[in-house]
Amino acid sequence: MKFISTKDNLLYAIQTVQKAVSPKSLLPILSGILFKAYDNTLIVRATDLELGIECFLPVKVIETGEIVLPSKYIIDIIRRLPDTVIEFESNDYLNSITIKYKNSQANIHGFAADEFPMLPPLNDGFTFLISTSIFKKMLRQTIFATGTDENRPVFTGIHFQILEQEFKMVATDTHRLAMITEHLPLIKQELPGIIVPGKTLSELLKILNSTQDEEIKITVTENQIFFLLNEINIISRLIKGQYPNYHHVIPKDIIAKIKIKLSDFIQSVERASLLSSSISQHIRIDCENSDFIVISSNNEAGHIYEEIPVFFEGEALQIYFNSKYLMDALKAVDSEEIYLELSGPINPCLLRTEDRNYLSILLPVRP
Amino acid sequence: MKFISTKDNLLYAIQTVQKAVSPKSLLPILSGILFKAYDNTLIVRATDLELGIECFLPVKVIETGEIVLPSKYIIDIIRRLPDTVIEFESNDYLNSITIKYKNSQANIHGFAADEFPMLPPLNDGFTFLISTSIFKKMLRQTIFATGTDENRPVFTGIHFQILEQEFKMVATDTHRLAMITEHLPLIKQELPGIIVPGKTLSELLKILNSTQDEEIKITVTENQIFFLLNEINIISRLIKGQYPNYHHVIPKDIIAKIKIKLSDFIQSVERASLLSSSISQHIRIDCENSDFIVISSNNEAGHIYEEIPVFFEGEALQIYFNSKYLMDALKAVDSEEIYLELSGPINPCLLRTEDRNYLSILLPVRP
Repeated sequence: MKFISTKDNLLYAIQTVQKAVSPKSLLPILSGILFKAYDNTLIVRATDLELGIECFLPVKVIETGEIVLPSKYIIDIIRRLPDTVIEFESNDYLNSITIKYKNSQANIHGFAADEFPMLPPLNDGFTFLISTSIFKKMLRQTIFATGTDENRPVFTGIHFQILEQEFKMVATDTHRLAMITEHLPLIKQELPGIIVPGKTLSELLKILNSTQDEEIKITVTENQIFFLLNEINIISRLIKGQYPNYHHVIPKDIIAKIKIKLSDFIQSVERASLLSSSISQHIRIDCENSDFIVISSNNEAGHIYEEIPVFFEGEALQIYFNSKYLMDALKAVDSEEIYLELSGPINPCLLRTEDRNYLSILLPVRP
Repeated sequence: MKFISTKDNLLYAIQTVQKAVSPKSLLPILSGILFKAYDNTLIVRATDLELGIECFLPVKVIETGEIVLPSKYIIDIIRRLPDTVIEFESNDYLNSITIKYKNSQANIHGFAADEFPMLPPLNDGFTFLISTSIFKKMLRQTIFATGTDENRPVFTGIHFQILEQEFKMVATDTHRLAMITEHLPLIKQELPGIIVPGKTLSELLKILNSTQDEEIKITVTENQIFFLLNEINIISRLIKGQYPNYHHVIPKDIIAKIKIKLSDFIQSVERASLLSSSISQHIRIDCENSDFIVISSNNEAGHIYEEIPVFFEGEALQIYFNSKYLMDALKAVDSEEIYLELSGPINPCLLRTEDRNYLSILLPVRP
């Protein structure tokens, strides 16, 4: 293999696929990145067997071929190369590559590419297009509520469902739940319900934040999901299992409603959390029949009392939250005002936007 | 004590003095910051008994007084206050303070101020003024060579000396040495030689980077050094002991001289260090009687070969350096070109600027 590329293009591709590298894998080759040159295109690819990312780059190919190079070294070296034309030439007998720049060169040992796992082929499946900005917003507003416990895999993913042109994402770790619905009038088919790994979506979100693509093409097959951008493909396994029936946790017997300015609420909760106990992280919200609520907390260092103007209707009550969980839920909201619907001091609390397209549910804690 | 201040002024003062807070001190009060209000001035002060920093702020004082507040909480709370007028009122009986903003308030427990250590008074001593930019440059170019071994305290400081209007700073950890000399024609007296703690100077450098002061007033007494800025005073103990005679380590029998572009050199050493052995961190420099030198390194992952154009005269030789130490020395240099003077493959290497005002000495390592 032999090709010529600029530093910046190559660095972008490597940094993109790096997110799928598995540095601690039992298979050493998975700590590497595949480089495959053909037809004046370079494919740069990494996979940890669950998530695969590949990036397509236009380069000047002098000799086709492929090699796997250790991600740790190749990223650091390419990052520090001068901004000049760089020549890559592999030695297929030694499984090494020579990188030539100016009068200098680096030589890195790699692996034979034929041992590198293939990515699953893109078969026919349920395919739809979605605007990148809508998709990013949906991910941002739900991903915080995914769990991290690998023993309960269904909770580590986001549930995707399309019914009657409504695309719905749901995430829950059982302590909290976030749900967003977007109307997509161009989608005629239905997607019965799949669970996409949170790790995949969090890496995808980072990639989408650094691309210019306006649309993303999504294909769902029996076991995989494919996210196709102009120059980047992301392939992930789906999580198997039955997603819990979340409809019954959405509180219905609302006894108090609060409408509140989101930025005021966030700043007050942030301050109150500074003086919440380091173990329980509890903060207290006092809702009276009046035009403000009080958020308070105390620990050995002192206490904080925050008064925030609200629109309030319903029964007076006191409710305790884990301040970190409450902050996560508030920071995911994308509107100026937020509605809190309370069903009692130890019953689930509903946070929602005015149009109800976004809602999140938070379990209070006991005082 | 009762005063009114804006958030930003107070935050700046607290963040400035925070560098002298001793969070893990056996004396709990030293984890606190002193606030003292009098004459429409607020003094904010912290000390770890070796270094003291105080900041003077114009505030509206309603009632004079003083209190010590735990730095951990007070910094976080003030950082998150709204940008509004803030009222502070202490309760001297409870040793606590109430911070009022909008309709909210925080109450923090503190300590009685009379238990807080006094800073030493500014007695008569050797006093001189120096331009902040020159002083910062001198610190930046030497501080990297100070040691960290508390069992050999003289090596943890920078040696200051003024003789015949030449201000000289020297730092060495015995593996390397950095020395800078500035001509200060306005200083008529002489300073025989003191050792200023590296920690003090590193905090001072951060403070100088965030102030607008053009001059700094330095006073040296028997055991202390005072750095006086417009609104900030920094007081530090001096390190006792005899500074080593460093003159004899400056190499004299030079067998080869190299003139090299600093940025080229730094980039090549940076790349070569990526493939130096993670244990030894050695890189090799080959100097031939030619117009370039070669920097190379290798480890289990591969090898790097860097050719850099130079102006060379003298004997050919191969020399090995610890790449981190070489990088530290190069990054401290403040000129476009650097001169290397070699006295043999295992003898000290001299790095200097053209005017010889700055020099640093680096011990090679054995291959």
